[in-house]
Amino acid sequence: MKIGILTGGGDCPGLNAVIRGAVRAATHKYKWEVIGFLNGYKGLVENRSRPLTSAAVSGLLDRGGTIIGTSNVDNPFSFAEIVNGKRTLRDASDDVVRTYKEHKLDALIVVGGDGTLSIALRLCKEKGLNIVGVPKTIDNDLSATDYTFGFDTAVGIVTDAVDRIKTTAESHERVMVVEVMGRDTGWIALFSGIASGAHIILIPEIPYDLGKMVEKIYERETLGKHFCVVLAAEGAKPIGGDVTVKRHVNDPSMGIRLGGVANVVAKQVEDLTGIDTRVVTLGHVQRGGTPSAFDRILCSRLGVCAMDMVAKKQFGMMACLKTPEIKAVPLEQAAINRKVSPDDPMIAEARATGISFGDGL
Amino acid sequence: MKIGILTGGGDCPGLNAVIRGAVRAATHKYKWEVIGFLNGYKGLVENRSRPLTSAAVSGLLDRGGTIIGTSNVDNPFSFAEIVNGKRTLRDASDDVVRTYKEHKLDALIVVGGDGTLSIALRLCKEKGLNIVGVPKTIDNDLSATDYTFGFDTAVGIVTDAVDRIKTTAESHERVMVVEVMGRDTGWIALFSGIASGAHIILIPEIPYDLGKMVEKIYERETLGKHFCVVLAAEGAKPIGGDVTVKRHVNDPSMGIRLGGVANVVAKQVEDLTGIDTRVVTLGHVQRGGTPSAFDRILCSRLGVCAMDMVAKKQFGMMACLKTPEIKAVPLEQAAINRKVSPDDPMIAEARATGISFGDGL
Amino acid sequence: MKIGILTGGGDCPGLNAVIRGAVRAATHKYKWEVIGFLNGYKGLVENRSRPLTSAAVSGLLDRGGTIIGTSNVDNPFSFAEIVNGKRTLRDASDDVVRTYKEHKLDALIVVGGDGTLSIALRLCKEKGLNIVGVPKTIDNDLSATDYTFGFDTAVGIVTDAVDRIKTTAESHERVMVVEVMGRDTGWIALFSGIASGAHIILIPEIPYDLGKMVEKIYERETLGKHFCVVLAAEGAKPIGGDVTVKRHVNDPSMGIRLGGVANVVAKQVEDLTGIDTRVVTLGHVQRGGTPSAFDRILCSRLGVCAMDMVAKKQFGMMACLKTPEIKAVPLEQAAINRKVSPDDPMIAEARATGISFGDGL
Amino acid sequence: MKIGILTGGGDCPGLNAVIRGAVRAATHKYKWEVIGFLNGYKGLVENRSRPLTSAAVSGLLDRGGTIIGTSNVDNPFSFAEIVNGKRTLRDASDDVVRTYKEHKLDALIVVGGDGTLSIALRLCKEKGLNIVGVPKTIDNDLSATDYTFGFDTAVGIVTDAVDRIKTTAESHERVMVVEVMGRDTGWIALFSGIASGAHIILIPEIPYDLGKMVEKIYERETLGKHFCVVLAAEGAKPIGGDVTVKRHVNDPSMGIRLGGVANVVAKQVEDLTGIDTRVVTLGHVQRGGTPSAFDRILCSRLGVCAMDMVAKKQFGMMACLKTPEIKAVPLEQAAINRKVSPDDPMIAEARATGISFGDGL
Repeated sequence: MKIGILTGGGDCPGLNAVIRGAVRAATHKYKWEVIGFLNGYKGLVENRSRPLTSAAVSGLLDRGGTIIGTSNVDNPFSFAEIVNGKRTLRDASDDVVRTYKEHKLDALIVVGGDGTLSIALRLCKEKGLNIVGVPKTIDNDLSATDYTFGFDTAVGIVTDAVDRIKTTAESHERVMVVEVMGRDTGWIALFSGIASGAHIILIPEIPYDLGKMVEKIYERETLGKHFCVVLAAEGAKPIGGDVTVKRHVNDPSMGIRLGGVANVVAKQVEDLTGIDTRVVTLGHVQRGGTPSAFDRILCSRLGVCAMDMVAKKQFGMMACLKTPEIKAVPLEQAAINRKVSPDDPMIAEARATGISFGDGL
Repeated sequence: MKIGILTGGGDCPGLNAVIRGAVRAATHKYKWEVIGFLNGYKGLVENRSRPLTSAAVSGLLDRGGTIIGTSNVDNPFSFAEIVNGKRTLRDASDDVVRTYKEHKLDALIVVGGDGTLSIALRLCKEKGLNIVGVPKTIDNDLSATDYTFGFDTAVGIVTDAVDRIKTTAESHERVMVVEVMGRDTGWIALFSGIASGAHIILIPEIPYDLGKMVEKIYERETLGKHFCVVLAAEGAKPIGGDVTVKRHVNDPSMGIRLGGVANVVAKQVEDLTGIDTRVVTLGHVQRGGTPSAFDRILCSRLGVCAMDMVAKKQFGMMACLKTPEIKAVPLEQAAINRKVSPDDPMIAEARATGISFGDGL
Repeated sequence: MKIGILTGGGDCPGLNAVIRGAVRAATHKYKWEVIGFLNGYKGLVENRSRPLTSAAVSGLLDRGGTIIGTSNVDNPFSFAEIVNGKRTLRDASDDVVRTYKEHKLDALIVVGGDGTLSIALRLCKEKGLNIVGVPKTIDNDLSATDYTFGFDTAVGIVTDAVDRIKTTAESHERVMVVEVMGRDTGWIALFSGIASGAHIILIPEIPYDLGKMVEKIYERETLGKHFCVVLAAEGAKPIGGDVTVKRHVNDPSMGIRLGGVANVVAKQVEDLTGIDTRVVTLGHVQRGGTPSAFDRILCSRLGVCAMDMVAKKQFGMMACLKTPEIKAVPLEQAAINRKVSPDDPMIAEARATGISFGDGL
Repeated sequence: MKIGILTGGGDCPGLNAVIRGAVRAATHKYKWEVIGFLNGYKGLVENRSRPLTSAAVSGLLDRGGTIIGTSNVDNPFSFAEIVNGKRTLRDASDDVVRTYKEHKLDALIVVGGDGTLSIALRLCKEKGLNIVGVPKTIDNDLSATDYTFGFDTAVGIVTDAVDRIKTTAESHERVMVVEVMGRDTGWIALFSGIASGAHIILIPEIPYDLGKMVEKIYERETLGKHFCVVLAAEGAKPIGGDVTVKRHVNDPSMGIRLGGVANVVAKQVEDLTGIDTRVVTLGHVQRGGTPSAFDRILCSRLGVCAMDMVAKKQFGMMACLKTPEIKAVPLEQAAINRKVSPDDPMIAEARATGISFGDGL
């Protein structure tokens, strides 16, 4: 048999470990051949690939990134191309089918987020391709799986960073606002906030009240704690409305990708309290590099199980962690988000240790 | 209310985080007082304690060890004392009761392994003390909980070490035998072996066959891989019988705590193959120091939930992770071990990536 | 004898290790008493202090920050106070002398940057205080010492971050512009750029040419390397003039501390090349937290040697590393900056490995 | 031009970074060709090599080990071979010359310890080969250079390990004896002992007195510090004679490579004091894996400078760090050891912080 594999969407620690796991299972257990398509669906449309032998994946377990590249944007059903200098969109899904047939593939493993997997589902249903998915979202916001890979690594990186930042906050008697990933869900902020002992955690699911935040800061002052670490998910927002955060500004002297919720919060806190307040935006450091041991194990298992699913012809399904097992789940479930419920036991537990969610509860 | 807490058994990353979580919940959520008894049950017998205020546990989240000390050996029902220069054992359980009453304790939280918790159960049943347990075993060999705290940290430490050792093995074309914790169960070896890409994993639950191990090493040679990393749990043993490992030798020039399964395996492999073989025994590095983010979260939650269990009068119970919740489980279950089943899906998945368990399957 | 100590200026990994070294030498070797003044010169003006016994500094070697606090701004010769609701400046240097005398100090150790040490020099010369300095600048831009403490830690942190970012850049075929500390000198960018294998390093001492940078990026493209990591010191600037970077913007929706050279460079590169370009600003993560082994040793030695200098009455001097020794150097030299010379052998060596400094050489 | 390179002796973090630096300088700056000989001199005798292009060394900066392999034992002047099943030694130096000529090499870069470099010197002098050396000793015991590469990494690894072990020692009120590399010199023990706050450091250069060690342990007890970390270099020995440590034992049930100074010291301390005492032997973890930022920079510079020395025809010389420059030094100096002098300022500074060297001073 011959199996294709591709990785799509944003970088995530452990992609290479998934590839390695899948290729090892194919070559070692099943004696199958594997090829990797380059840069997500683009490689499938344009038929660009590389063979993935056992030797090709040697040493990949601890390497960040993906050796077959990825792409955030490409959709074969609406594929962007430059024609006569103009960007045009066309349905390139038949190119995908042609590539698939040309390589005489028996199945395709698609590793990616909900966007990537929803395309996989269409290719499965509309074009009849044999596809097995591996869900990927660093935000851990997928209800079908206990943990998504890369999340543990991201939480570890944020925790290390806050460990460092905290000592500076204390030495300078400052408020430090640290912005972490999480546009729609606050899992990274919640987990790393508990792990690092942040004092205030702001997540999209629990709108914050600036006045209550300031009260918390003052409460700490009265306890002789003249510093405060605020961990804010990108998507955190105030009660009663959105912050009008200008994320992309066109003033050329300003460059690109400037603002963010942390800047807004910091400015407001500093204006209200007069306390020296600083911002740290962790950004891309959170999503690259060597995976944690937890993620390496999870990825290795996911890669193997995806290949096992091919063997069992569980197409249109994806490999999900149901502790302690990896199970096959319909690809449709890739679209079902898991948000942090304000009633989540972890929220109550965090509050019990004195953590505020900025909402005054 | 006034709550006592003690930690017993071997050191484990996260003990301080459990203490902090419990004390924070008590002082912040319940407005209760907490005292810590020093060095496990010994402090309870001898009435040695220190108050654990919120300030006392500040900054503990990332500190290894336990600020109230621990002890591997003391059992109040058979308490060792030196009387007239001679070591004698006596039942000191009434001293425990007296200390408990003298402090007017409403409950006692006991953090410890199966030995420590079986004593807690007796104190609960026979002496009527209000006890809540938090199970601790770095080996992760407890069926009542998905993960025990400290295990993720230990796996991370072993994985980092094997990452380092592997490059040396490759550069020198050697076999490296790395001995890790696990006298009775192979969870640490299994998890860190998968995470680090070890080639052979030896665990107590799957006896190894030296000849098959050597075959695996030769098989790698034929693939041009002139090195091999063997990860051996302390309790690994050959098919058909125990290794007669002399762990404690009385020759004074030899010192103490010498041998171990890794030494035996290494000697045998070197003798059979002639390949340069070296041993690394990771030892105590695995069980101390700052906990991983995963463990800090788990510990924080366990500490809080133990205090919640006190509030709910769930005595004779212990706090256990049932992903994603922490639940109360009868203390009796602390004695139920979880071994690595040869049929565990992780074993099959590991084999699929080419890992050998030394048994020739 | 009784010795005072204070830390001034920005946080820097190793401040606590210097304090510990000095206190240990005082208590252990000299049997002297030490007190720490809180928050830099402010504590000296306002006579706020804490005793620093051997026990008080126990466990400080690996703790980031400074247990006696610091302050970026206070100058006793021009001391800011709020009088009748208005900020006023006054000469408070006699308050410093009064505090010094009240405590019957025999000497004062001042740990701080060039600003802090220039004040120390004035207090020494104009007020006759017995002062020994320990120079602190995370930027390593002091000619009197081979390395300043905290620098090795900062370089390590940046290197780890770039290791992570690089894999994302490669997987996404992006340009990543990483901004690191260094307003006036490029040592951190130079060292961590070499250590992490950055492709382009921008430092204040070597103005960059945007066109040449783009050439370098295209040159890498032709080699099949579709990604590029640019490491930019905060103070990097283009040939022929300053970038008009608006660092602080008053638009409230934007918050504070937005822009920076990395944003400007990224915008320009993306506009010119069309290649997806992202920015990471490492910020405060670089200057807090546990020091590296190198810095712990350096700090420990500096603390001890500062106390030895007190014993030898080497006042008006500071402790500097002249490999392999720590030597006493006049405090006047704290003002002598060390910039990266374009003729520095490390620049030529970096160029030899293919690193571009954006200047087209 | 065409340059050969080989690495000999024990693994050391940064070997790959030296190779990468040299190859980059050759291909990028000089447009020369490089080949690597496999497994040290053995590859030169047997003419086994691989081309080292710029692509071949891509991504090597942070990889431990050496991609061209190494060997501890081979000496072309006395080359071991199996002839008719018997191990024989012969002078194979002419094979080296033949290989050198066959490849039309213009020069050879040899990276290795004093043994490897003394052979290089003979090949240079007796056989007229153009050789440039790069000294390698993880022990930092070379007087010709300020720091040898790998040393900073090793010190960092030991420091991390002792950080962990210390919390266990404190929680259990134990003495922990940690054995680190250093058969003849104590630099690793000295540096990492200061960095980690060890209480007693045993090095070969300062013989220890068991009674004095025990006094130190008791002195700590009286201060309420019921634990002690002893850091012992492998080659540490008592006053008045060698410990008769049996390093290799023939009892097959014991395996190989058992004892060591740490075991002896631990046994003696436990026997004398009755305090629970444990041993950790760090072993090979210290000498493999990714190099620290400091070492990556040093290695990169050494590799480039070695190639610069080839360009300048500085044969029979080796590249050495004379802070802040890399300089050419005669290969003869590779044999000049640098021991820790009891008068070294670091010893006095360490004593000032309360560290004992076990000698009672």
